[in-house]
Amino acid sequence: MANPKKTPRPKAETPRGFRDYFGTEVTQRADMLAKIAGVYHRYGFDALESAGVEKVEALGKFLPDVDRPNEGVFAWQEDADSDKPGDWLALRYDLTAPLARVYAQHRNDLPTPYRRYAMGPVWRNEKPGPGRYRQFYQCDADTVGAASVAADAEICAMLADCLEEVGIERGDYIVRVNNRKVLNGVLEVAGLSGDDKEAERGIVLRAIDKLDRLGVDGVRALLGAGRKDESGDFTDGAGLDDASADVVMGFMQAKRDSGAETCARLRELVGESVIGLEGVEELETIADLLAAGGYAADRIEIDPSVVRGLGYYTGPVYEAELTFEIKDEKGRSRNFGSVAGGGRYDDLVKRFTGQEVPATGVSIGVDRLLAALDAKGRLDTSAQGPVVVTVMDKARMVDYLAMVAELRQAGIRAEVYLGNPKNFGNQLKYADKRSSPVAIIEGDTEKENGMVQIKDLILGAQIAENATLEEWRDRPSQYEVLRSNLVAKVREILELYQ
Amino acid sequence: MANPKKTPRPKAETPRGFRDYFGTEVTQRADMLAKIAGVYHRYGFDALESAGVEKVEALGKFLPDVDRPNEGVFAWQEDADSDKPGDWLALRYDLTAPLARVYAQHRNDLPTPYRRYAMGPVWRNEKPGPGRYRQFYQCDADTVGAASVAADAEICAMLADCLEEVGIERGDYIVRVNNRKVLNGVLEVAGLSGDDKEAERGIVLRAIDKLDRLGVDGVRALLGAGRKDESGDFTDGAGLDDASADVVMGFMQAKRDSGAETCARLRELVGESVIGLEGVEELETIADLLAAGGYAADRIEIDPSVVRGLGYYTGPVYEAELTFEIKDEKGRSRNFGSVAGGGRYDDLVKRFTGQEVPATGVSIGVDRLLAALDAKGRLDTSAQGPVVVTVMDKARMVDYLAMVAELRQAGIRAEVYLGNPKNFGNQLKYADKRSSPVAIIEGDTEKENGMVQIKDLILGAQIAENATLEEWRDRPSQYEVLRSNLVAKVREILELYQ
Repeated sequence: MANPKKTPRPKAETPRGFRDYFGTEVTQRADMLAKIAGVYHRYGFDALESAGVEKVEALGKFLPDVDRPNEGVFAWQEDADSDKPGDWLALRYDLTAPLARVYAQHRNDLPTPYRRYAMGPVWRNEKPGPGRYRQFYQCDADTVGAASVAADAEICAMLADCLEEVGIERGDYIVRVNNRKVLNGVLEVAGLSGDDKEAERGIVLRAIDKLDRLGVDGVRALLGAGRKDESGDFTDGAGLDDASADVVMGFMQAKRDSGAETCARLRELVGESVIGLEGVEELETIADLLAAGGYAADRIEIDPSVVRGLGYYTGPVYEAELTFEIKDEKGRSRNFGSVAGGGRYDDLVKRFTGQEVPATGVSIGVDRLLAALDAKGRLDTSAQGPVVVTVMDKARMVDYLAMVAELRQAGIRAEVYLGNPKNFGNQLKYADKRSSPVAIIEGDTEKENGMVQIKDLILGAQIAENATLEEWRDRPSQYEVLRSNLVAKVREILELYQ
Repeated sequence: MANPKKTPRPKAETPRGFRDYFGTEVTQRADMLAKIAGVYHRYGFDALESAGVEKVEALGKFLPDVDRPNEGVFAWQEDADSDKPGDWLALRYDLTAPLARVYAQHRNDLPTPYRRYAMGPVWRNEKPGPGRYRQFYQCDADTVGAASVAADAEICAMLADCLEEVGIERGDYIVRVNNRKVLNGVLEVAGLSGDDKEAERGIVLRAIDKLDRLGVDGVRALLGAGRKDESGDFTDGAGLDDASADVVMGFMQAKRDSGAETCARLRELVGESVIGLEGVEELETIADLLAAGGYAADRIEIDPSVVRGLGYYTGPVYEAELTFEIKDEKGRSRNFGSVAGGGRYDDLVKRFTGQEVPATGVSIGVDRLLAALDAKGRLDTSAQGPVVVTVMDKARMVDYLAMVAELRQAGIRAEVYLGNPKNFGNQLKYADKRSSPVAIIEGDTEKENGMVQIKDLILGAQIAENATLEEWRDRPSQYEVLRSNLVAKVREILELYQ
């Protein structure tokens, strides 16, 4: 081989905004995804896995007049093929855009309606921040080709089932449902339905979205003449008169004790608006369908204050929120908040085929759900380290490998120490680092006598920390057993800690 | 929003060399990965998941004197950050290069030795071909920081266990082990050890690799003066004299009935070569360790003809081959061949840290394994479609959703028909497309009588295909049961087909 040009050693580091996941971080997420996939499957959804790479124009981010696709995605141009310029490719930024492409491409072979689920990484070319990475998991279920709001109701029920399946108890979550059509009706009543009112509608939408932060008065100011913030900066308002602003405020605050009452209130607010009435009726239907399935308002409720991604959705929208409090990094209590959301959209497939295809779907934020379960102490963090067979005599590796093979064949997680066995202390330090529950020792004396030493490392650690001398004497954490009893004794100890 | 420039509709297509996976294609692979992960875990390996994106220089493909990293990887340059040029990023092309980066980056926090497994997609910027995609799965296990060949023996045993776990029966596979050091010893004996013999060594390696295709005579010609193929093209040989060529030929054909005999033969061939003798002793140790674990030569054997990726490996190499025959696309029988391989490598971490770190690992080709199980008819392809509750009366959707909720809560995969229910034939066609085992029908008459119709679609299809009129009368495939017996009757039918 030619002598390569000497280059400085590369730094061993993840690219900015990416990270590595180790051990239980990986397996806990895999367990959660498998549980959610189980629920999706039970609801009749089929798995779909598309590649991480799509053509940029299929993702809908292609701007023909710039040299490079716009920000937000990782994109690159393929090498030219003879005189044809290479395609622009990109990493998918969500699982919905690929679904639209897949459905348009394979629609003649797919059932209609098509219920599909997908789970996997997506990539965003965005500025990373604390807890915000440029690769993360999504876990989606969508129904394509079903105009009936029964599809939306089904997804809300499935979302509730998923949360319970992964360990969120009933009472610790609420799925809230709203309808974009009702909001459109309210905007119509408020005089903001015309094509020339686009800017005003935008102001109203953003104002509603800020209710949590600005409070009722702040939103009210933005609906009217405008709002001056603490720093003195002025934000233009939508210019609604008092009566119209009342309608919008009433919409946000329309939630009542029961779904029926909430819908009745919304019916008042949308007045004669055809689209608004249609929206209210859809909400009523959803509530009826959910009740028939046994999903009462303690799990899924109508809540007009839900305003998620409103530019994108065309009908029902829904969101799952965890209702318990956790401590934030400063020790303050706060609600955990949203872990999943979705709604109905109609335009994604149309981009490819020209035909409108109704679709509705949900995305569950598995990383947030894992954080929630972790905060509640509900993740399985029990000792999962392997039994470590130590090496007392390098020349007898055959004996140690036979032990470890026996343990593994009995279904017990086990390994032989594969580092340099010279220093026995290092072997026990290794077992500690691996969170090993048990260590096996077979020196020459034990070998001669047909015995092995079995150290209960969990009990050993407890004793080292807490026990008095007497307790230490009474509770030995090391046992000498017949070699033939190795597996049975190890199993007995492991069962103590399950 | 400004009126966007009108662009033609994008084509709905995957980029060249990528594909979509549907339904059981996804779940069968997920099941296989979960089973393999279970074995890896039992052997003490910990999960690791790194991002799909790495810095190009961490992957070791960066050529500083070209504008763009070389072919083989998908790479792009990040946007510049003020006056600093952006990093070159790339999609990982395997799971080993990221492991080296992770180990170098986190080595102070990781146990030594570090046993890790990883599974996920990798990307290759190569010309796609039939069955060759530019994104595919790898499923690796590696031990980093263990110089002992006990680590190699362990991985060979684990590989055998993995194959049996996913459904390859004992006798249908063989794990073959060789050692790069033995080959180096043989080359030394053949007079090809000098730095100036690089070219000749390359010819010998490539010749050995072609034994299957060229046969003994062809390889022999390449070891000597050279070889003329059928088309008349001449390939230069390594120029070995007869005695030296005999040694190399002897190496390739050194396999005997038992590992001990094979090792004895290798010992003759490497003569006085220190590295060669070391290699033979390592193979003997591996054979002893495996025998102690119960892995006899019917599962794992020493085979000097294994020559995989020899440029990369520094010690033991191993490969799993399926030994049964399948029919190729032209109906000819052929051996299925290799499904996994690996070996010992020492230089990957050194790139980052300057310190040599011994490592050994295996990669299982899950897609090939799935193809093998499919060819043997051992994949679970039992009907997994959902029970379909048909819609006879759109106004009674509430009734149908209640049924479907009951079925799901009983753990039965079920869905209500969400398409336009006008044409009942379409609903049964849909159930057929979904491979539904059972359809539920509740028309107005049934509703009045408190009954439902349950259609056994699998039996129905069998009868339609084969039955005589008498059989058809005797074996009704549709049952009318009390609404309250819905779940029990559906369960009874499903159990027939499990």
